[in-house]
Amino acid sequence: MELWYTEKQTEYFGITAKIKETLVAEKTEFQDLAIIDTVEFGRMLVLDGMVMTTVKDEFVYHEMVAHPALYTHPNPKKVLVVGGGDGGVIREIMKHPEVEKAVLVDIDGKVIEYSKKFLPEIACELDNPRVEVIVNDGYMHIHDHKNEYDVIMVDSTEPVGPAVELFTKGFYQGIYDALKDDGIFVAQTDNPWFKADLIRNVNRDVREIFPVVRVYWANIPTYPSGLWTFTIGSKKYDPLAVDESTIPEINTKYYSPRIHKAAFALPKFVEELCK
Amino acid sequence: MELWYTEKQTEYFGITAKIKETLVAEKTEFQDLAIIDTVEFGRMLVLDGMVMTTVKDEFVYHEMVAHPALYTHPNPKKVLVVGGGDGGVIREIMKHPEVEKAVLVDIDGKVIEYSKKFLPEIACELDNPRVEVIVNDGYMHIHDHKNEYDVIMVDSTEPVGPAVELFTKGFYQGIYDALKDDGIFVAQTDNPWFKADLIRNVNRDVREIFPVVRVYWANIPTYPSGLWTFTIGSKKYDPLAVDESTIPEINTKYYSPRIHKAAFALPKFVEELCK
Repeated sequence: MELWYTEKQTEYFGITAKIKETLVAEKTEFQDLAIIDTVEFGRMLVLDGMVMTTVKDEFVYHEMVAHPALYTHPNPKKVLVVGGGDGGVIREIMKHPEVEKAVLVDIDGKVIEYSKKFLPEIACELDNPRVEVIVNDGYMHIHDHKNEYDVIMVDSTEPVGPAVELFTKGFYQGIYDALKDDGIFVAQTDNPWFKADLIRNVNRDVREIFPVVRVYWANIPTYPSGLWTFTIGSKKYDPLAVDESTIPEINTKYYSPRIHKAAFALPKFVEELCK
Repeated sequence: MELWYTEKQTEYFGITAKIKETLVAEKTEFQDLAIIDTVEFGRMLVLDGMVMTTVKDEFVYHEMVAHPALYTHPNPKKVLVVGGGDGGVIREIMKHPEVEKAVLVDIDGKVIEYSKKFLPEIACELDNPRVEVIVNDGYMHIHDHKNEYDVIMVDSTEPVGPAVELFTKGFYQGIYDALKDDGIFVAQTDNPWFKADLIRNVNRDVREIFPVVRVYWANIPTYPSGLWTFTIGSKKYDPLAVDESTIPEINTKYYSPRIHKAAFALPKFVEELCK
């Protein structure tokens, strides 16, 4: 029997991957959760029918959420990750010795549990003593923690299901309030080929709250269109003002001192969305 | 009836697109040629079962083949395109008034004929008086034209079918000989996620012939992995030495003076392939 997993990334376009095995398929309190083993990309975490991460290409997303912001802030001691229960962003944050504490707040404890069990390459730092894992609504956590974080990273699903509120202006205001006076946040903000309006709207909302707003991108093969954007809102520090020669060569496969600024050079049609 | 076109980009991974209509499906002297109308990406040219271009995303590939090399050479008067019978690269070349003549050599006249008929947005400059269209084997044309071109662009299919010889060291040597003393060439060189060996081999071969070798990339949603590489071999001019402030803002949707150098910043795992 030949099994293929197909994700309709839009109503009319999708990707399809041959699978070896279904490891998890269950309805959690918040979403449909599956972990399948694909031939091409290895194990794959799927939430509500959308690929969240795969063992083969996860490094791109996780490195590109974590490092641009952490190398922009000169002294990131306390970091919050909203979502990201698979632990990939936490793993990258742990490469920064200056981070004293990283707090992960995911609404769905099952994502954490199954990632630890079936995606150990990704979840491997969730038990690091510098990490605190909280199962809670990120929106609520932000609301209850004012002026506390140096860096906040929003590693959400796409804006359907439990992540809808993580793309609202109210949430960005909450993030602003939860950050210290020189804090910086970054969020994954989908792709410009199929979700141009989302990028335009997020950009507009974040600009109304943060003085420094920058959009950058990376190639992620299993995400719709392969072009994924990230939006930074910063109270003080500008990622483009970083002296690249001061960024160390750490153990990464996508991010590098050379990629740091280049990632902010947007294709012209994406620049237009962010004006 | 609901029709979907599925391309297996590897043995175990593919894309799938809902189609409205099949406009052409025939076996030419050289390859299987199809033009289908998809809902998501508009009309799509498919050769030997591989997406060559679509109306929605074609601008990325065509701009990124043409402009980096043309803005690196200070005076590109005569340009050769090998392959590219759809005319997209020619359309971009025609945006450069300094180009006096562009020669297109495609082995398959049917690609040219059907592109003119069904893809007029792409083929629109093939009848420009500055353009000469030749139906011939690009390998032979290169062999017969020594020291003639300022810029040569290889817009081939992937290295199966008629394009196999366009990825050989002998072909790159032929290109070197067909270029003038300060000539520059660029070729599409596939993706690093599924074809790492190809990129490594092309890089090694081109380095043995050209003193300046640079690899850059762009996001093309309908190509495997969404990350496409291009390799430049140059006798004299370095694309990274270009003063970006001298590049004009022309009518493009992907390429820009800001993208020119940023495109050469490779993800770290791709840098490793090109060492």
